[in-house]
Amino acid sequence: MTDTSTFPDPVYRDTVLAPLFEGVKMHHARHMGQINRAHLVMLGEVGILSPEHCRAIARTLAAIEAEIDLAALNYTGEHEDYFFLIEAELKHRLGDPGGALHTARSRNDMDHTLFKLALMDKGNALLAGLCGLIDALLTTARRERDTLIVAYTHGQPAQPSTFGHYLSAMIEVMQRDGERLEQALKTVELCPMGAAAITTSGFPVDRARMAELLGFREPLLNSYGCIASVDYITGLYSAIKLVFLHLGRLVQDFAFWSAFEVGQLYVPNSLVQISSIMPQKRNPVPIEHLRHLSSVTVGRCDMVVNTMHNTPFTDMNDSEGEVQQAGYAAFDSGNRVLALLTRFVPACSINADRVRANTDAACITITELADTLVRDEGLSFRQAHEVAAKTARAVISDRQPLSEGYTAFAAAFQSGEGRAPQIAEGQFRTAVAPESFVARRDRPGGPAPAALEHAFETYGQAHDTLLSAAAQRDRRRADAARDLSSAFAALLED
Amino acid sequence: MTDTSTFPDPVYRDTVLAPLFEGVKMHHARHMGQINRAHLVMLGEVGILSPEHCRAIARTLAAIEAEIDLAALNYTGEHEDYFFLIEAELKHRLGDPGGALHTARSRNDMDHTLFKLALMDKGNALLAGLCGLIDALLTTARRERDTLIVAYTHGQPAQPSTFGHYLSAMIEVMQRDGERLEQALKTVELCPMGAAAITTSGFPVDRARMAELLGFREPLLNSYGCIASVDYITGLYSAIKLVFLHLGRLVQDFAFWSAFEVGQLYVPNSLVQISSIMPQKRNPVPIEHLRHLSSVTVGRCDMVVNTMHNTPFTDMNDSEGEVQQAGYAAFDSGNRVLALLTRFVPACSINADRVRANTDAACITITELADTLVRDEGLSFRQAHEVAAKTARAVISDRQPLSEGYTAFAAAFQSGEGRAPQIAEGQFRTAVAPESFVARRDRPGGPAPAALEHAFETYGQAHDTLLSAAAQRDRRRADAARDLSSAFAALLED
Amino acid sequence: MTDTSTFPDPVYRDTVLAPLFEGVKMHHARHMGQINRAHLVMLGEVGILSPEHCRAIARTLAAIEAEIDLAALNYTGEHEDYFFLIEAELKHRLGDPGGALHTARSRNDMDHTLFKLALMDKGNALLAGLCGLIDALLTTARRERDTLIVAYTHGQPAQPSTFGHYLSAMIEVMQRDGERLEQALKTVELCPMGAAAITTSGFPVDRARMAELLGFREPLLNSYGCIASVDYITGLYSAIKLVFLHLGRLVQDFAFWSAFEVGQLYVPNSLVQISSIMPQKRNPVPIEHLRHLSSVTVGRCDMVVNTMHNTPFTDMNDSEGEVQQAGYAAFDSGNRVLALLTRFVPACSINADRVRANTDAACITITELADTLVRDEGLSFRQAHEVAAKTARAVISDRQPLSEGYTAFAAAFQSGEGRAPQIAEGQFRTAVAPESFVARRDRPGGPAPAALEHAFETYGQAHDTLLSAAAQRDRRRADAARDLSSAFAALLED
Amino acid sequence: MTDTSTFPDPVYRDTVLAPLFEGVKMHHARHMGQINRAHLVMLGEVGILSPEHCRAIARTLAAIEAEIDLAALNYTGEHEDYFFLIEAELKHRLGDPGGALHTARSRNDMDHTLFKLALMDKGNALLAGLCGLIDALLTTARRERDTLIVAYTHGQPAQPSTFGHYLSAMIEVMQRDGERLEQALKTVELCPMGAAAITTSGFPVDRARMAELLGFREPLLNSYGCIASVDYITGLYSAIKLVFLHLGRLVQDFAFWSAFEVGQLYVPNSLVQISSIMPQKRNPVPIEHLRHLSSVTVGRCDMVVNTMHNTPFTDMNDSEGEVQQAGYAAFDSGNRVLALLTRFVPACSINADRVRANTDAACITITELADTLVRDEGLSFRQAHEVAAKTARAVISDRQPLSEGYTAFAAAFQSGEGRAPQIAEGQFRTAVAPESFVARRDRPGGPAPAALEHAFETYGQAHDTLLSAAAQRDRRRADAARDLSSAFAALLED
Repeated sequence: MTDTSTFPDPVYRDTVLAPLFEGVKMHHARHMGQINRAHLVMLGEVGILSPEHCRAIARTLAAIEAEIDLAALNYTGEHEDYFFLIEAELKHRLGDPGGALHTARSRNDMDHTLFKLALMDKGNALLAGLCGLIDALLTTARRERDTLIVAYTHGQPAQPSTFGHYLSAMIEVMQRDGERLEQALKTVELCPMGAAAITTSGFPVDRARMAELLGFREPLLNSYGCIASVDYITGLYSAIKLVFLHLGRLVQDFAFWSAFEVGQLYVPNSLVQISSIMPQKRNPVPIEHLRHLSSVTVGRCDMVVNTMHNTPFTDMNDSEGEVQQAGYAAFDSGNRVLALLTRFVPACSINADRVRANTDAACITITELADTLVRDEGLSFRQAHEVAAKTARAVISDRQPLSEGYTAFAAAFQSGEGRAPQIAEGQFRTAVAPESFVARRDRPGGPAPAALEHAFETYGQAHDTLLSAAAQRDRRRADAARDLSSAFAALLED
Repeated sequence: MTDTSTFPDPVYRDTVLAPLFEGVKMHHARHMGQINRAHLVMLGEVGILSPEHCRAIARTLAAIEAEIDLAALNYTGEHEDYFFLIEAELKHRLGDPGGALHTARSRNDMDHTLFKLALMDKGNALLAGLCGLIDALLTTARRERDTLIVAYTHGQPAQPSTFGHYLSAMIEVMQRDGERLEQALKTVELCPMGAAAITTSGFPVDRARMAELLGFREPLLNSYGCIASVDYITGLYSAIKLVFLHLGRLVQDFAFWSAFEVGQLYVPNSLVQISSIMPQKRNPVPIEHLRHLSSVTVGRCDMVVNTMHNTPFTDMNDSEGEVQQAGYAAFDSGNRVLALLTRFVPACSINADRVRANTDAACITITELADTLVRDEGLSFRQAHEVAAKTARAVISDRQPLSEGYTAFAAAFQSGEGRAPQIAEGQFRTAVAPESFVARRDRPGGPAPAALEHAFETYGQAHDTLLSAAAQRDRRRADAARDLSSAFAALLED
Repeated sequence: MTDTSTFPDPVYRDTVLAPLFEGVKMHHARHMGQINRAHLVMLGEVGILSPEHCRAIARTLAAIEAEIDLAALNYTGEHEDYFFLIEAELKHRLGDPGGALHTARSRNDMDHTLFKLALMDKGNALLAGLCGLIDALLTTARRERDTLIVAYTHGQPAQPSTFGHYLSAMIEVMQRDGERLEQALKTVELCPMGAAAITTSGFPVDRARMAELLGFREPLLNSYGCIASVDYITGLYSAIKLVFLHLGRLVQDFAFWSAFEVGQLYVPNSLVQISSIMPQKRNPVPIEHLRHLSSVTVGRCDMVVNTMHNTPFTDMNDSEGEVQQAGYAAFDSGNRVLALLTRFVPACSINADRVRANTDAACITITELADTLVRDEGLSFRQAHEVAAKTARAVISDRQPLSEGYTAFAAAFQSGEGRAPQIAEGQFRTAVAPESFVARRDRPGGPAPAALEHAFETYGQAHDTLLSAAAQRDRRRADAARDLSSAFAALLED
Repeated sequence: MTDTSTFPDPVYRDTVLAPLFEGVKMHHARHMGQINRAHLVMLGEVGILSPEHCRAIARTLAAIEAEIDLAALNYTGEHEDYFFLIEAELKHRLGDPGGALHTARSRNDMDHTLFKLALMDKGNALLAGLCGLIDALLTTARRERDTLIVAYTHGQPAQPSTFGHYLSAMIEVMQRDGERLEQALKTVELCPMGAAAITTSGFPVDRARMAELLGFREPLLNSYGCIASVDYITGLYSAIKLVFLHLGRLVQDFAFWSAFEVGQLYVPNSLVQISSIMPQKRNPVPIEHLRHLSSVTVGRCDMVVNTMHNTPFTDMNDSEGEVQQAGYAAFDSGNRVLALLTRFVPACSINADRVRANTDAACITITELADTLVRDEGLSFRQAHEVAAKTARAVISDRQPLSEGYTAFAAAFQSGEGRAPQIAEGQFRTAVAPESFVARRDRPGGPAPAALEHAFETYGQAHDTLLSAAAQRDRRRADAARDLSSAFAALLED
């Protein structure tokens, strides 16, 4: 059997190599330059290459980078990929010594380093977007600290609370999501360089230095793991998925709250699509877009994670180029959700009239009346509940708000207890007012002003922690960039 | 509370409206033209609009279409979307009468019609790609009808079969996948036009005619379903997912078969990435790309389907613009898998030497020896198995191929049965030859030549059925396009 | 390296073999008896075994089946699995001839036959449950043919329709889901028996007869595919997933419709959990259970399908025992959804007062006023829209129902057109009445009575088709059971 | 409309209430007792209930618990659920005062507390199982520190390494998975008690004390979040999913390594299913079971997480009872994987003969020869590669191991460089020996003994950290149990 075919088959070129090349141009070429420079610096520092050798390569690299017009490059199939194209150019200009840049490294460790650099960029940006959203939630929650809302359980009005209290619940979730992202990024920040193909190298490379020059936290230890483990991918995309799964629930509430019949959430004109003929019809369509863009982001994260399912624990394309590039779409849709929601939440307000109307109609402060009867009239729970329930039935049947129901209450009390209540009408009104309801809920985590204020402080501190971790990471990466830049410049000038 | 904000908020414009506009330009603008033309033709035919009115609109539409430079359009936020841009242009040029084109229709029915037209295009193309693959599988299966392979169970060599027999199993799966796709497309081909916003219209529109002009099979009956049901999406993407889930299993086998130690599948140089220094190292990387592109396609299908989860059963953006556009990426990666596999399968061949070596080493014809002893020597199953097992142990211990094991066999027979076997060495060789093994498996569905030939005929017929359904659909759509074109031309000239 | 360990390792026994054994006892033992009887009958019929041999095996099988107390069997590890336990018992009682039952078959073809028999039972039951639901939807839709509802788009009130029209949209989806299930079951109904381990057998088995005796449609042709292809699993679970994904959307609407502020759907006391103290609080909790049980079913289907991802295309446990058994939980939760929804839908009713109130408040008939002005007053669309919009603004500002807005309308008309409208107050009321709105929507698929009646007929026919396919399948299986039973009885008595 | 129906509808009872009741009996009844006792202790401590009142309730609770036969309880529909059954019994025995136990709490906060207690139990057990596996991996890695293997990339032999080095890569992944689990459990360990229905209570409950008595880390702050946020569920199941996704990749390698033709991994008889007739056929079926049980676990985790998708951010059954119970199946299958793998890994060994044979055949040390030529003969990379490649081609064509290829090497060197090599045959043998290859890879994370030994120390420390976090948690929970037990006992005896 003679095989006279030559690589690459045109179909393979068109279905795989060319699309990959375009993806590398867009996403990885800049980072490949960084890796080349850092590796050269390190090879020089540990003495694997002589200063003269380093200088020659450095100058050629700089020249190539200055001359190449990335956007104009089209894949021809002459070189397998962008890496080989650069290497060929280096050898073409420098001869054999050009090949020495590839000493003690491999496309295997380079690739995962490239992917991690891209994910560090994108992950940090997404985390910054999340921090921006948390900030907007926090600002809005403070602003709406005292704004009454109807809180729902099982889709039905249940108790009064405040918008600030409600948003705070989501702030806590987002802060935990921030920590999950933070945690996930820590694994991304472990540098594979020095693992070479699988097992490190026989040359005395300095892995810690490579990590430092590229802005990583430290090297990823086991060299097999450097090219085979994918939990930096699965961990990060899983953490991102959760952000948007959780935000999708907030969005779901907004959809309900802004439904015509509910009307608790007012969405401003700038975020509402209207109909010229139906002036009352206000479609808060951004909510829908937030929902499906969240779902799409969730789905894109799943796609990346599940691609790893049942793959071997080795260096494999299932975790590389195309899959990485396909995954970036999750950042795109995710960032759009974060940006839009960061705008949306502060722009909305609570429709106090509708809250009041729904509060009254649903009688949602009635349990507080019962609690009051236990505390102030000495009734047992059962007795208090019976009086309260009878009162509620009466006002509902009369289509009265509960606050107007003192007469009904007094009658119910008399009939149940055989005596008149000691509570006067003013006390009754207070007892069933949503403001009192909220003010009484002053346990840690409750909606009462002091409890909420205390919570805001806690959230503020947690937010600072998250921001400062991000700032520290940004600083480390900026320092590394400067370090690399000056070390490389020094090579050029030697 | 005064709301002085105006639509669109810039963040909303940038995160939602502008990307959507770009998507519509790329994917839906052409079909929107078709819908406009068809709707106008229908409005004229049923007399809702007068011939003069139709002519005026038709000419203006034609002029706009001729003058608009789609690629150059940038989203400004002046018009909510592309639809409104065209409508505004129409009204701008024609005044009030321009608005009449929108009589008895709505963006609701138009949108799902657009999405279905796009899915019909893409679905048909994917099905054509699948048919091409089936054709390649069928051609290769016929070519490799007699080519022995080792068939595996539980990842271990189990029995001899032929490559043609193996590929035929996948042909059957792909033909059933083709039918599933075909079935799924049938739901796509039900036209929503005439449903208008939700409930059809008070105008006497002709829904059947709209379906016909646009190349659909027929109208989708219930008008609420026209704008709310999404099973045309979920059904289609579920069917596509299965194609690539199933192909991924074939690919998984190819990966194993082409492993260095197994070597059953020879991948030609044109599809192998090699190492300059390790001439023996042949990485059949296309197999990996086939695997992860299949996984990515599976994940993209899941993303679309799962976005519908827990959405309301109404007209909702969760099934519209952006999600539709995000879904098209599944077709892109899927088509690449089909194209590459269609090339890959016929380009590969079976390495007969390795098959022979693995067959011998794994003694996989030993069960046929036992069966032969039952049939020809009258042994019971237990006796036959004992003789065969003893024979196998002996040849393995001597590192002989089974075919060289007559002496060992005769000894095992003698020791078990107390007599010499009647079978002579030639018969023994025949009994344990993989060729005999295969030739004996002549039940329907077996690898023996006649059985396989009969199967090929069956597959050929099934393939013709699939192709003819596709051809019929293509014909219907081409007829519709001609019909629409001439009806619209008639309007212009009236 | 000497290996003195013996099978089974106790951890393997406890984590795998014992749980599998329990699963086989519960789900597959009965069908294994059927396969044994059918295979024996076939071996006798084609003459592979003599009548005497068959009789001996038949009697022993019958005795074992009569004597074995399945529930009391505990896994001991003595036999690898239930199959071997039965085979051992057969050989124990009958000696060597007992082994002949296993001629020309293998656990490979038997296993997939077992799984298919179980899925045929469960799939048919689920399809019957779905047919029951369709029947309930159809009955309720007919009953509620004229019951007005508010139809929503984008979560906001949009147009009047009828409950019957709305349910009809879901009937169509469910009928297509029924067809998808039906189609998926067709692949399940292809019999693997005769494939033996992989390649059929050297014995002249009759595959068609096996299929017939076991109630299959016909044999699955390619024998490799019989033991390697899993699309009968992925196809069926994908089809089931869609049923519950789609039903979940209906459930989502019910949740919204029964929200306190919306109140369009009245859920009776028997399906509402109430609070003793809050008499107005009615939690229609079954809706939530329907939603999450649907989600759980969807997730369980995904679990089965995705387990096949990146598995080899060979006989593999990834598609067998434990995974099959894990999948049955999807039928359990799915059947509960179907049963509960079949009860829930007819038990609910529409709250006409709330529908009227929401219709009025949302002014959802206003577009019909505009259409009327076009048709009856000769206004252009733009003019008609302006008058209608002005009317709507006026009645909303006066908190009037639109039907009371003739004065406002007349003023708007006068101001826009410079003349009084020709339409009198009675005509105006009619034009904006939801009843008229619906009655005018009489295109095919619209909510007007005649259109709906025609649709019901279509659905009735489609339902009959689905039921008759199910009945035909049941009949075939019942016939097969009788055929097998008498053929086996004949063996016993020979 | 009169509604005379009464709760519960029999279908609802059978499809929802009864299955839920069975689930609560099995999973939650014991924890409900704990919550009752802790809540009572807290109510007494803060003075909401008097000592006498507490004593009466405590004694009645103790009596009920002593008398109730949980296993024998069948759901009757008389009480909505198990909670109400206990409450009814309490009121039945104690009258009105029995109701006071429910002061300042609600089923809402209780439910999520129950779910968290169950997940703490199950999560800790799973983490313990994972620690056990890490321990087994670590022990085996140390044992196999020097055992050569073939390391693969892209499914092809690539370089020599050691089994200890390979396993270490997975240890690192598992340790990161352990940290992810640990992190996820931290969110589970935040106590919802005191949130009551939504907003805490007007009674002065002590939330910190409740958290303490129940063994939580601290209260979950925002009370709305206590009953609405589900990230304790999604975070935990996502973390679990990753464990099994990652282990599945190890399992995938084991499948390949134990394939007949590869033979690198020897699976002992106790874990291999054999065939009586094919003595050479050894099916290491536990590997398949590990794979699909991992997949099933992954799928079950997804099912739980995805059930939360598009649910409202409120208290909802989508995150409660049935879904929680359905999720426990993931722990069941996951624990089986961990137990089996913990047994499997140390029981296996590397087949040195096969490793040697594959190493030779695949020439995988050839790159080290090139590196040696660069270092010791002063060749450029290009020159070195050419000599090495020529050598490789020659030995492969002669079917010699590379170590026997000195003559071929010398010829290649001579032809390329025009001189004889300085390296002698012994040096050549050393250069291409896998032992040398490994010994040279002594960078941090490499397979050389010292590097590996250093890594083991790092892993040992990380393992201790993980174990000590787990131990601390266990201690806290045990302390809490003692504390609760004695506080409750004190109530009884007051």
